[in-house]
Amino acid sequence: MRVDIGNALDEVATPGIPEDALDRLDSRVADAHERIAEGRAAHEHGYESLNLPETVDTGAIREAVEPFQGSESIINVGIGGSALGSATLSSALESDVDAYYLDNVDPEWIERLLEEIDLSSTAVNVVSRSGTTAETLSNFLVVQQAMEDEGVDWAERTWVTTGESGNLRDLADKHDLPSLKVPDGVPGRFSVLSTVGLASAALQGHDIDAIVEGARDAERSLSGSLYDSPAYAYGAIAHALDIRGAGVNAMMPYSESLETFAEWYAQLWAESLGKDGLGQTPVRALGATDQHSQLQLYRAGPHDKMVTFVQVADRDDVAIPETDLEGLSYLGGSSLGELIDAEFEATEASLAAADVPNVRIEIDRVDEYNLGNLLYNMKAATVMAGELYGIDTYVQPAVEWGKKAARGLLGGGDFEEADAVAEKNVFEIE
Amino acid sequence: MRVDIGNALDEVATPGIPEDALDRLDSRVADAHERIAEGRAAHEHGYESLNLPETVDTGAIREAVEPFQGSESIINVGIGGSALGSATLSSALESDVDAYYLDNVDPEWIERLLEEIDLSSTAVNVVSRSGTTAETLSNFLVVQQAMEDEGVDWAERTWVTTGESGNLRDLADKHDLPSLKVPDGVPGRFSVLSTVGLASAALQGHDIDAIVEGARDAERSLSGSLYDSPAYAYGAIAHALDIRGAGVNAMMPYSESLETFAEWYAQLWAESLGKDGLGQTPVRALGATDQHSQLQLYRAGPHDKMVTFVQVADRDDVAIPETDLEGLSYLGGSSLGELIDAEFEATEASLAAADVPNVRIEIDRVDEYNLGNLLYNMKAATVMAGELYGIDTYVQPAVEWGKKAARGLLGGGDFEEADAVAEKNVFEIE
Repeated sequence: MRVDIGNALDEVATPGIPEDALDRLDSRVADAHERIAEGRAAHEHGYESLNLPETVDTGAIREAVEPFQGSESIINVGIGGSALGSATLSSALESDVDAYYLDNVDPEWIERLLEEIDLSSTAVNVVSRSGTTAETLSNFLVVQQAMEDEGVDWAERTWVTTGESGNLRDLADKHDLPSLKVPDGVPGRFSVLSTVGLASAALQGHDIDAIVEGARDAERSLSGSLYDSPAYAYGAIAHALDIRGAGVNAMMPYSESLETFAEWYAQLWAESLGKDGLGQTPVRALGATDQHSQLQLYRAGPHDKMVTFVQVADRDDVAIPETDLEGLSYLGGSSLGELIDAEFEATEASLAAADVPNVRIEIDRVDEYNLGNLLYNMKAATVMAGELYGIDTYVQPAVEWGKKAARGLLGGGDFEEADAVAEKNVFEIE
Repeated sequence: MRVDIGNALDEVATPGIPEDALDRLDSRVADAHERIAEGRAAHEHGYESLNLPETVDTGAIREAVEPFQGSESIINVGIGGSALGSATLSSALESDVDAYYLDNVDPEWIERLLEEIDLSSTAVNVVSRSGTTAETLSNFLVVQQAMEDEGVDWAERTWVTTGESGNLRDLADKHDLPSLKVPDGVPGRFSVLSTVGLASAALQGHDIDAIVEGARDAERSLSGSLYDSPAYAYGAIAHALDIRGAGVNAMMPYSESLETFAEWYAQLWAESLGKDGLGQTPVRALGATDQHSQLQLYRAGPHDKMVTFVQVADRDDVAIPETDLEGLSYLGGSSLGELIDAEFEATEASLAAADVPNVRIEIDRVDEYNLGNLLYNMKAATVMAGELYGIDTYVQPAVEWGKKAARGLLGGGDFEEADAVAEKNVFEIE
């Protein structure tokens, strides 16, 4: 992964970073790198995520999914960090095995999905560290019932990915289900390179060792200077632009296969950095499509944004056939790949021409190795940004309030948060 | 559609709107409503969009797609406003006919898609007002070639939706293709209730008259007061929150079927209002999924956001089976619908408890009538917001720069914008 920050400097953009500020930033990066290295060495909560290339046991993952080989599809039941990493790999890489993600509790959607899938040749992966996530457990109960209704032995077709103890662990023990352990010290949104993210990928036939290899090379590229470390450069620049006024960060890959990557990144960035009144708002975008949707705002709206491009250097191409349509002959003989590349370069330049800061992330190809590399680098970038903000990157305390309120509303105990729901301030217009 | 602005008032939220400011806002809404009515009566560019419930000819649309009845799938070739309205309807409503949207020029993605689809039973709808949109025309040339390669007569399977003249109109005339006219005065992002948005829906078997009927009822609900008009209330409140500091607007429907609606809205809002250094940044979110991704940031990050919920009052439900799993018994006997509703109410209350402004939009069901109603209302809301900002809602001049640069890069003429691309400021870290 390469990072080009040329269009984030103040000679191009507003807000932008002066070159001398880069040097000051670099010394803060050096300190932060030291803190990160300490945290990793001590296996501290969260920092441990960056050790995954060493600690993950890909052999055990392959072994756990071995009984499910030959499945036509996989239903992954999990939400948030228990789904997005795996979904990112699945969306990016082609496979004959379809992977579905039950990451919402919309009844109409789930009913349609379960009707579409042949459950008799489907493997089920239930992912929840605590084993108590209401959405995940509810969905699993529904899937279990649907399998029973079709005469499918759900226990034959299910593995669980969970913590050392809890409901799901008990369930696995009781029914003798294969199970994978969620690693300690790794928050869900940092777990793509573990059992959480890799098991479904392994069953889809992807080379999970190449994913880890890419991550390991990213790990080796971390250093005490942003000038040498693409991951740290990205995290430091995004932070520096945020505090100079770019409170929004549009993640815009120029590849359909990376659409889910932008969602994964949005969770990682938002949930890690959004605290203490701080944090840049990630916006999921897609090139070239969003040129026809969001670009007007990015160029001509408030100067409160940066745009992060992810460009893929090499891909399979499709020729554009020749045409005698007037004014379009220039397209004939070109290719879709040339077109999307030209649109990327044009959009990047058009933002620079409008003084809008933007950063280019470039990867060689969308394959296992480069995905592992990209995902690890973005995790390290997030950790670096968290250090620079001075916040606790690895917690998400603000979501607890709503969990208690929902539980109270469903009769799962007495919570004062549930009472607040009834006191809503209503001002309705109809 | 009902709008509840109770959680946008300053007694709840920061930023929030004082009740006396609502009255002042209401008099500006009255003036803007008058301006909008004048524009509509004079068929002015853009304002004409709000006349679509009267001007659209659903009979002609049904007639144009009649020759394609029996197709197993539809490939819609179009980008931005030529795709998003139609895609919103397609994602929201169930159909036996699959609709695909070629709204990007990623060669790997297009190649995979064309391999998956049985082209011999596929209808193709090419949508471009100008007939010169590079992405759309290139994709169409590729589809045409793919059909020829499989011995399918593309001319038998294609209709075009375009302006009165231009490349696509010429092509239609030459090959005697059925064609639909993009209405005058209706920018792409406002065109869902026209030939652009409804033709594919008609071929999918949806009741497009019910869609228009829902829009007509929304149209009738427009009045000179925000207290009587849900659409104007929403547009005015979003604008008022933006200028008080909520520069980000997260659109968060609690329904998987409305995920594409959030994308449609994001284009409408961003491209209409993002100009002159103004405009609120739309963020596409999804409930309940994004509670596990974005909620931490929304609650605990900077107070620069509002959240717009879309809640569906009535839907088919799925019971959650009873369980003996410890700590989860409260879920058994409940339903996924009750769970997602409880999560919605809990999230709404949790934002209010954190002083984050939020607005609830409620619709009765996800069906043709209510979608037409919702889409029209959001268009009217956008028009109202545009009046209050005092900008030209219907243009998108900032995207022209990049189009010229891309065209120049591809050898389609001399453009100084293309030269700027070569002068990019490079600062690469690897």
